[in-house]
Amino acid sequence: MTISPLAPAAFPDLPVIDGVTFAAAAAGVKYANRLDVMLAIIADGTSVAGVFTTSATRSANVLDCQRKLSAPSNGPAAIIVNSGNSNAFTGKRGDGSVAALCKGVSDVSGIAEGRIFTASTGVIGEPLPHDKIIAKLQDLHDTQGDNRLGDAAQAIMTTDTFAKGSTKTVMINGAPIKIAGIAKGSGMIAPDMATMLVYIFTDAKIDQPDLQALVSRKNAVTFNCITVDSDTSTSDSLMIAATGASGIDVTGNESFETALHDLMRDLAHQVVRDGEGATKFVTINVTGAASDADARLVAMATANSPLVKTAIAGEDPNWGRVVMAVGKSGATADRDLLSIRFGDILVAENGWVAETYTEDAGADYMKNQDITINVDLGLDQGTATAWTCDLTHGYITINADYRS
Amino acid sequence: MTISPLAPAAFPDLPVIDGVTFAAAAAGVKYANRLDVMLAIIADGTSVAGVFTTSATRSANVLDCQRKLSAPSNGPAAIIVNSGNSNAFTGKRGDGSVAALCKGVSDVSGIAEGRIFTASTGVIGEPLPHDKIIAKLQDLHDTQGDNRLGDAAQAIMTTDTFAKGSTKTVMINGAPIKIAGIAKGSGMIAPDMATMLVYIFTDAKIDQPDLQALVSRKNAVTFNCITVDSDTSTSDSLMIAATGASGIDVTGNESFETALHDLMRDLAHQVVRDGEGATKFVTINVTGAASDADARLVAMATANSPLVKTAIAGEDPNWGRVVMAVGKSGATADRDLLSIRFGDILVAENGWVAETYTEDAGADYMKNQDITINVDLGLDQGTATAWTCDLTHGYITINADYRS
Repeated sequence: MTISPLAPAAFPDLPVIDGVTFAAAAAGVKYANRLDVMLAIIADGTSVAGVFTTSATRSANVLDCQRKLSAPSNGPAAIIVNSGNSNAFTGKRGDGSVAALCKGVSDVSGIAEGRIFTASTGVIGEPLPHDKIIAKLQDLHDTQGDNRLGDAAQAIMTTDTFAKGSTKTVMINGAPIKIAGIAKGSGMIAPDMATMLVYIFTDAKIDQPDLQALVSRKNAVTFNCITVDSDTSTSDSLMIAATGASGIDVTGNESFETALHDLMRDLAHQVVRDGEGATKFVTINVTGAASDADARLVAMATANSPLVKTAIAGEDPNWGRVVMAVGKSGATADRDLLSIRFGDILVAENGWVAETYTEDAGADYMKNQDITINVDLGLDQGTATAWTCDLTHGYITINADYRS
Repeated sequence: MTISPLAPAAFPDLPVIDGVTFAAAAAGVKYANRLDVMLAIIADGTSVAGVFTTSATRSANVLDCQRKLSAPSNGPAAIIVNSGNSNAFTGKRGDGSVAALCKGVSDVSGIAEGRIFTASTGVIGEPLPHDKIIAKLQDLHDTQGDNRLGDAAQAIMTTDTFAKGSTKTVMINGAPIKIAGIAKGSGMIAPDMATMLVYIFTDAKIDQPDLQALVSRKNAVTFNCITVDSDTSTSDSLMIAATGASGIDVTGNESFETALHDLMRDLAHQVVRDGEGATKFVTINVTGAASDADARLVAMATANSPLVKTAIAGEDPNWGRVVMAVGKSGATADRDLLSIRFGDILVAENGWVAETYTEDAGADYMKNQDITINVDLGLDQGTATAWTCDLTHGYITINADYRS
């Protein structure tokens, strides 16, 4: 598979996070000869929080994680993830697969089943061959290393063309607090949770309810603001584990919150940059809306519009389609107050094309790999930003025959 | 341009509707050497009703039509429509173009400007060269014929690959009531009005408020249930004129309502069959939902899903993507009560693939040109149907460079 032209130059050097170790293995769930299972072992005293898809047909794994997090403890924990099969819509058998995986991890690690979190990503509706994973659990347990998060990032990929990682360090009271995260996601990416898998680890100390509140809040302005194809996965999971190994309490610490926000946004952008068939990374900034909610409607309607996305693919500065997307969004809008900029180029204002705008300037701008569309509704203070990619022949090629 | 493989075999023979005449001309608005303007002249005593896009950035033409229909008379009327330029987001100048067109038609016909309805379809944001249209108005007036509705259907096409017409005759009190309609639409087709232009004429007699109520009701279950690409046009207009020339009052007549329903559904299907790049016509039937509204959420989420539509393009019986669409729709659903059929083939039930299902049977079914997906939620009595087409390389090709 060709690596996305929007991929970062390299996978980052991820730091050791005291209190958590990783391993990855090739279990042959679906793909041959590649890592497809990862196991994280998390030390006693760690706060674990998560955000999940709201799909009504979410997977057995997601339901199990949600149930376990509804009464969190802070005992030792584990996260087991496979790619190649999503274990979604696999009926009672899917529930059985989750139970079997949790028991298997508990058997090799001694960790309570109620603290073992699973995720599966890949094709929907086919039975998960969990025995193949269970056969690797002893190995996964025995080969744990504190420097293997990068292998884990490889193991959770499906149609991804590159592994996604990000790290931030923030100094608090003179001590470095480290955060490291990995993600997978490429298609079936739409808001309403991030429609992907994301795992973040930090040695910060923070109580579980505070961690849960923080990650939910940051999720709303990072992963929930991206879309590749408007389709919402049945398996989306984001989990964060704060081991507390640094001894530094970050509750309410603004520097930590900013670092976590930046890391989550970085991973979210990487998912968009690996959007199926993507050749352009697109930022939609909406300002001047009647409310933030209205701004989000406009941002997401624009980011999800097939006509906007195909115009970007064709490097066509077709701002009329942006007007269309504003119009269909459901947000309050006034034709004569609306203004649109492609980057810094004023394209439309006062209900019509700007006097200073030239088609040549617009066409030149659209040749960029990173495109920013700025929409000001001219009404009030509401703002929102969404990130997406273009819609190309590559998306059709990948998805018209995914299962074969 | 290649004609859609889903096109009907031939354009129908449209009957004369007493009380209305038509003409079409080549004004060179954008396209060279083809009909691009149509003018309908409607007799005194005709009820005229309409349904329009709810886009917040709807065109000057739509706003003008809505204003005029808010205080309908039944004096002589006219409809002037051009293709090639939508006159949408053209600011104050767009309002001026509408006024100029109405004055021009009034000048040649003597019809009051308040009874002249306009529509424009094509590219957004470029000034409408209305002088080119006005230069043709005398000709359009002088060449009116009662048998030229087919020419009008040609004139309103944009990216359409075939002209769309439909006719029904219903016997009431021993007399034939005739209905004839035309439509255009191919891309930027999503519900919330039909996102296209539709003109329907009948010699039935019915008061304007009754006609308006009837067409709004029928629109909700025909044009508002189709989608090509989930994008909502700024120009959608459906107008119906009931001349009363038959002398037969059809108020509340079930046969007439059924005939009108069938005609509107036929035109709606033709728009889908001409969906940009379409190679499959897809019907989504949803039953067993908690409410009709929930059923519609599921039907439209499935019909709009890029992943469902690309799977159909690839003839892949990927029912997991249907499960995904049900899940993301926002409707109440229970994994274990849901069942999915491709045509008559039971694919999934009891939360998993059906025991009797074989991938070969599914793959064979997907080779059909007309595909029906039946989703039963197993909850209550809510039902809905949506119609769409597949998402192919052809859609990308058409839309990645529409303006050039």
